[in-house]
Amino acid sequence: MVYTDIATRTWDHGWRLDPIVRSLLDTDFYKLLMLQLIWRRHPTTQATFALINRTRTVRLAEVIDEGELRAQLDHARGLRFTKKELIWLAGNSFYGEARMFAPDFLAWLADFQLPDYELRRVDGQYELRFAGAWTDTTMWEIPALAIVNELRARAALRGKGRFTLDVLYARAKAKLWEKVERLRALPDLALSDFGTRRRHGFLWQRWCVEALKEGLGARFIGTSNVLLAMDHDLEAIGTNAHELPMVAAALAPDDAALAAAPYRVLDEWRQAYGGNLLIALPDAFGTAAFLRDAPDWVADWTGFRPDSAPPIAAGERIIDWWRAHDRDPCEKLLIFSDGMDVASIAETYRHFHGRVRTSFGWGTNLTNDFRGCDPDGAAGLEPISLVCKVISADGRPAVKLSDNPAKATGEPAEIERYLRVFGAAGRQAAAVEV
Amino acid sequence: MVYTDIATRTWDHGWRLDPIVRSLLDTDFYKLLMLQLIWRRHPTTQATFALINRTRTVRLAEVIDEGELRAQLDHARGLRFTKKELIWLAGNSFYGEARMFAPDFLAWLADFQLPDYELRRVDGQYELRFAGAWTDTTMWEIPALAIVNELRARAALRGKGRFTLDVLYARAKAKLWEKVERLRALPDLALSDFGTRRRHGFLWQRWCVEALKEGLGARFIGTSNVLLAMDHDLEAIGTNAHELPMVAAALAPDDAALAAAPYRVLDEWRQAYGGNLLIALPDAFGTAAFLRDAPDWVADWTGFRPDSAPPIAAGERIIDWWRAHDRDPCEKLLIFSDGMDVASIAETYRHFHGRVRTSFGWGTNLTNDFRGCDPDGAAGLEPISLVCKVISADGRPAVKLSDNPAKATGEPAEIERYLRVFGAAGRQAAAVEV
Repeated sequence: MVYTDIATRTWDHGWRLDPIVRSLLDTDFYKLLMLQLIWRRHPTTQATFALINRTRTVRLAEVIDEGELRAQLDHARGLRFTKKELIWLAGNSFYGEARMFAPDFLAWLADFQLPDYELRRVDGQYELRFAGAWTDTTMWEIPALAIVNELRARAALRGKGRFTLDVLYARAKAKLWEKVERLRALPDLALSDFGTRRRHGFLWQRWCVEALKEGLGARFIGTSNVLLAMDHDLEAIGTNAHELPMVAAALAPDDAALAAAPYRVLDEWRQAYGGNLLIALPDAFGTAAFLRDAPDWVADWTGFRPDSAPPIAAGERIIDWWRAHDRDPCEKLLIFSDGMDVASIAETYRHFHGRVRTSFGWGTNLTNDFRGCDPDGAAGLEPISLVCKVISADGRPAVKLSDNPAKATGEPAEIERYLRVFGAAGRQAAAVEV
Repeated sequence: MVYTDIATRTWDHGWRLDPIVRSLLDTDFYKLLMLQLIWRRHPTTQATFALINRTRTVRLAEVIDEGELRAQLDHARGLRFTKKELIWLAGNSFYGEARMFAPDFLAWLADFQLPDYELRRVDGQYELRFAGAWTDTTMWEIPALAIVNELRARAALRGKGRFTLDVLYARAKAKLWEKVERLRALPDLALSDFGTRRRHGFLWQRWCVEALKEGLGARFIGTSNVLLAMDHDLEAIGTNAHELPMVAAALAPDDAALAAAPYRVLDEWRQAYGGNLLIALPDAFGTAAFLRDAPDWVADWTGFRPDSAPPIAAGERIIDWWRAHDRDPCEKLLIFSDGMDVASIAETYRHFHGRVRTSFGWGTNLTNDFRGCDPDGAAGLEPISLVCKVISADGRPAVKLSDNPAKATGEPAEIERYLRVFGAAGRQAAAVEV
């Protein structure tokens, strides 16, 4: 009844920090699906992940205090899956399938802990790396990104007045709700939250997810955030990511094995999962090359998630490929998740409506769009293009070509070799905003 | 950041009510164990439960608004087990046992809804009855009691000043913590929260449970409240209640069957559950009669929960009985749960320490002891003896004799008949305070 509970306030004084990641379930669902595959099929593979800030103009090491960053990373390392979380993973059904996670995998997960990290400051940026068993390092991707993004947001908001902050969030809420109203105009829309890694903060992501749930109803099919899915009885959404073909390619002993690597990974995947989880990422080493060399059974999969080519062009290319393989696009699914926002979602939706099933993963522009919301008009809240990528596997360099050279990662010499093997057909440079 | 979030405040304005029971898991664990047995073995049995206020001097119908009472009961009827709750019941282990609840039972539970109620005002009291299938009406016991007790507390607190309320809760917290400190002196104490039905309110019970968890550590073995057990990763505690022998007795066709009824129920129970769930209530029709006629296999059970006789006298009688049946009391367990408080817990603990394992279910005096806490010194917060008992099964009257005539329930003529069959040996009147 009193404005402030004294005991609570005093307890708060003792906080070492306000944790950004409070649960190991506060991650993307696809990490857990991939982790089960990695744990089962590649338990001894070593993989190093590194944080890469593509927005070099933002000098993160000058924005984020190193002590705060270490404290947040250390806090995340102290987390374990709770009994309730493991029970939910075991008992909940995902994509309509019960027992998605095997008991032996969950038993291993019960002792899981995020591995150590290497943090250095290099030229105004943080060099943050995670080296060790692939089964351990892969789990750092999402919490590492969420921590750095939220620490940057906290730094930008530090010292602002209470009403400045209140208006800032009021504007952000109004802005998101306008987007929701525009999305309501799309009757068959299937949209999910993909914004964990780039979010302004956990509480803000939760607000966004609750807003979509109330505002979009059945059009909002779920969230990639496993914790939010559990807490709000939503569907957990996600399948797989580039790290699978990238590691397979890095481990390929010769060029022939390299060319075959993307399909070897998909073959492992279809042995582990089925139905709506049969979604392929075509662009790791170029969509054109992927489709050109793909075995026919890839056309039996539910769909593709073009992640770096312009959505409409990429979708048309894939539809043509399905037709060329005598498959009916109307029974197929295209998932678009590359820097989407309301305009591109609406345009892509309308372009493909009736010709192919579409679904949209809405990320940065859902959970971190504060453009124009800061009454002080200060910088620091505009989203940056921050990723956490696998850079080597068992000591061999990992590469991503992507359909957009601006999204390529890896050592120049290796990139050249990959371009020799896969070709550069259909690659097209475009600015990477988020 | 602002003191009051305007949207939240306005949302709150729209509340039809502040719900007292917000989850079907907000009940005692023994109800779920008994429900599975009733559903499996007695699916067609009809049972009527009735609210009984033994503290006649408190005229509940003059204290609690009928409209509020109906609104709270109706809200509870709208509740369903959530997906997350059912997953937890299926996946959590209870008393060290996995899969305590069968899949077919949980499937039935998924559609469970509290049945309708009959509410009348009679002589300043509420006559609140639940008639229908035993599988449905049994689940009203705890929420009905929690609702009436909390509505009474809300009525007593209505109109008090903010600081009066702040001091009132401060005193209640200090009072409970003093009890915790006294209980710390008992090294081998095993204590659990049994206070759901008589609680001051849900939030207060939660505070008490969290305080015991922090203050008693391993001495605090869990809570009977299933929701609190799930939310705080505590053990859910409880076994069975008087309604089982009472219904079995009511359905007995003749006096011989009546005399055998208590043991027939225990036989059903041991076929359904094992280990630490083999705890018998000896006092439904008098502990002396129960022990006198008990078959030898009852002595193989883990222990007894004497619930109406003076704890030490009852415990000694049971220890003698175990010895007479060549069982070692040191391997047995006595659970005391009848109106216990720190003094009686400490006395009973010390009396039996080393001679028999003891465990204490702390109810009303844990979650509803505001005696002397109200700065206004007003009445209305002192706990009352409110119970919800089965009064008939398949149209035949149900009776409880108990070791304490003041706790007997049933029609006088039937009580006379039960006394003829079971005898009155060892019954002793004592004031029932809570």
